[in-house]
Amino acid sequence: MNIQSSLAAPLDVRDQFPAIAGWHYLDSAVSAQKPQAVIDAITRAYAQDYASVHRGVYQRSADMTLAYEAARARAGNFIGGAAEETIFTRGATEAINLVAQRLPKNGRTRVLLSALEHHSNIVPWQLAGYAIDVVPLTPDGRIDLDAAEAMISEDHRVVAFAHVSNVLGSVLEAPRTAEIAHSKGALLLLDGCQASPRISVMIDKIGADFYAYSGHKLYGPTGIGVLWGRRDLLESMPPWQGGGAMIDRVTFEGTTFMPPPQRFEAGTPHIVGGIGLASAIDWVEGIGVERIHAHEAALVAETRERLTSLDGVTLYGPEDSAGIVSFTLDGVHPHDVGTILDDAGVAIRAGHHCAQPLMALLGVPATCRASFAAHSDSSDIDALVDGLKQVKRIFG
Amino acid sequence: MNIQSSLAAPLDVRDQFPAIAGWHYLDSAVSAQKPQAVIDAITRAYAQDYASVHRGVYQRSADMTLAYEAARARAGNFIGGAAEETIFTRGATEAINLVAQRLPKNGRTRVLLSALEHHSNIVPWQLAGYAIDVVPLTPDGRIDLDAAEAMISEDHRVVAFAHVSNVLGSVLEAPRTAEIAHSKGALLLLDGCQASPRISVMIDKIGADFYAYSGHKLYGPTGIGVLWGRRDLLESMPPWQGGGAMIDRVTFEGTTFMPPPQRFEAGTPHIVGGIGLASAIDWVEGIGVERIHAHEAALVAETRERLTSLDGVTLYGPEDSAGIVSFTLDGVHPHDVGTILDDAGVAIRAGHHCAQPLMALLGVPATCRASFAAHSDSSDIDALVDGLKQVKRIFG
Repeated sequence: MNIQSSLAAPLDVRDQFPAIAGWHYLDSAVSAQKPQAVIDAITRAYAQDYASVHRGVYQRSADMTLAYEAARARAGNFIGGAAEETIFTRGATEAINLVAQRLPKNGRTRVLLSALEHHSNIVPWQLAGYAIDVVPLTPDGRIDLDAAEAMISEDHRVVAFAHVSNVLGSVLEAPRTAEIAHSKGALLLLDGCQASPRISVMIDKIGADFYAYSGHKLYGPTGIGVLWGRRDLLESMPPWQGGGAMIDRVTFEGTTFMPPPQRFEAGTPHIVGGIGLASAIDWVEGIGVERIHAHEAALVAETRERLTSLDGVTLYGPEDSAGIVSFTLDGVHPHDVGTILDDAGVAIRAGHHCAQPLMALLGVPATCRASFAAHSDSSDIDALVDGLKQVKRIFG
Repeated sequence: MNIQSSLAAPLDVRDQFPAIAGWHYLDSAVSAQKPQAVIDAITRAYAQDYASVHRGVYQRSADMTLAYEAARARAGNFIGGAAEETIFTRGATEAINLVAQRLPKNGRTRVLLSALEHHSNIVPWQLAGYAIDVVPLTPDGRIDLDAAEAMISEDHRVVAFAHVSNVLGSVLEAPRTAEIAHSKGALLLLDGCQASPRISVMIDKIGADFYAYSGHKLYGPTGIGVLWGRRDLLESMPPWQGGGAMIDRVTFEGTTFMPPPQRFEAGTPHIVGGIGLASAIDWVEGIGVERIHAHEAALVAETRERLTSLDGVTLYGPEDSAGIVSFTLDGVHPHDVGTILDDAGVAIRAGHHCAQPLMALLGVPATCRASFAAHSDSSDIDALVDGLKQVKRIFG
């Protein structure tokens, strides 16, 4: 751990985030703040370029269609996928629901999840009628792939894991996971919500079959997310929602459908969401995900070291967490910690983080979580530590 | 018909729409342009107020949650509904799919649609396994309610009609439709996409059971729409998508769910979409839907009169259409009309308008459609007529 690395190579982008002026925002894992470039792209789309897509015979609509389809290609190639394999959804949650509800089970009735999954990677499988097997965690909070290897069977249709844990920050060894899933003919779906802003993702190197991520966690707008899926798998999936844009020919007697990705995008899409997401990806790649990752890793190391020096702090998750530090303070409920930190101008999350089964496993009702972004710096950690000292004084 | 009324009482809001400067935008039925007030609300939400909702222990998140929930109440009361009965969806298409896929059929296997429905009010019912009966139209392009009355039966679970036709502009006699549906115990769902920006909607006066509308057609952002539903009906509907925010308690063994509307909103919502939609509703109500309706009705009358004076124009739909005029020009494909008008700075839609069955009924592959908004004025009609004269010269 090199605490100095974040100080030595700050990304120097804080001024680009108008909404965090004078504020220590350590809740990027729940939703990222937006750089001015993304806000400007959204404003420009509404105030200058606006038209609907796929429908107009006039130039403005043709231009907007090109921009929207370019955004799709951008959202796909950001993780190493092709445009035709990239579906715009409302968010990662809808992306996982789409797979759970529409992937043919092919006689396999079970999914393999892990003990650290977000509710959005648990409940969709329950609603779709799958039986669930739960892979345990290693002592430092990683998905135990040895256990997964022992548990995988030909009854499993899908292995669905978080690429990066939203609570612990642990990074999955994804290529090995793909091998494990494929060894028994199961498919690998990765929940990439926390990974996509934090680590470089290349689905072809991983060997993933489905990948889901959300725009608002990637410095982009709300209401937009991405499902990437292997072409042959998407083609095997029947339509989910019906409406305009996803059809080929409609009669009251019967309807034929477009191929993927259009088949899964009924109705007028979130046009400006797609364009804003593409702008966010441009912004991230302008810095480089690897640089953001290194920056956040340094901040995590610094935070873990400084929290350890406070009495009564318990840290969760591995030391090499990707940008996320969960902790508790002895004798103080995380909500009280969060409230006092708020008074000190520090925003963290306190709660179950939509991961109630993991909380049960950790034996706590909730944790505090500090999560970082490209704009984070040591001043945020200073404020966090000062705030925690204040909490300790109050609850002394 | 008083052609002068639009001239006598212009709404004088054109300058509030930055994206139409120097352009005659007559395609508001596919998607409305956005007033500056809405663009500013969106920008402010991202650049100043941004935080996620329902999750943070800090003040900014609490404030954003209040704003988002106030937006829900605004979206409900705009049509006379309560916040608890108002679900945010991606758009009207998703709203209709949600009802089609999750309303218990209660042993009824059929829906009653009309010949003028948009694909988004046809395909969802097909995908959900309903048999469809189709109410014919009157000669002037209204849904024939006498026919509907003769066709309704106790096999029909839902009567689902467009409140205003997206092709013909015809306004449904909604209260009578509710009586017809309820006479046999069927439910009434209204597709309010074109109605909500154009006529005053009060679901309690109509007696509707479900109402769907979209934000982007109501001067609001993309990616957001509304399903209003009667409370007891929403409570009878099981969850559709699973994830964060819609759950009460999650274990791997089983999950319990929140009541409506949260039950139907899995994952981080389109926060800024909701806030932008509320701003759009404020903008519309600041003018008054009735005034917008009167303004558009006058523009329709002026347009129909002036198009009738051109040789070879066929008009579709009733004279009292709400803001929409469909037409064809003898011997010229609508796409060619649209392309030449584009060169003249006039944007219309040319196509099947996501209503292929209606096109088949009208006996045309496509129509031209001019549709109005609050910012439209006689200069748009002048440009349209001049452009059509140019089309006629070219195709002479």
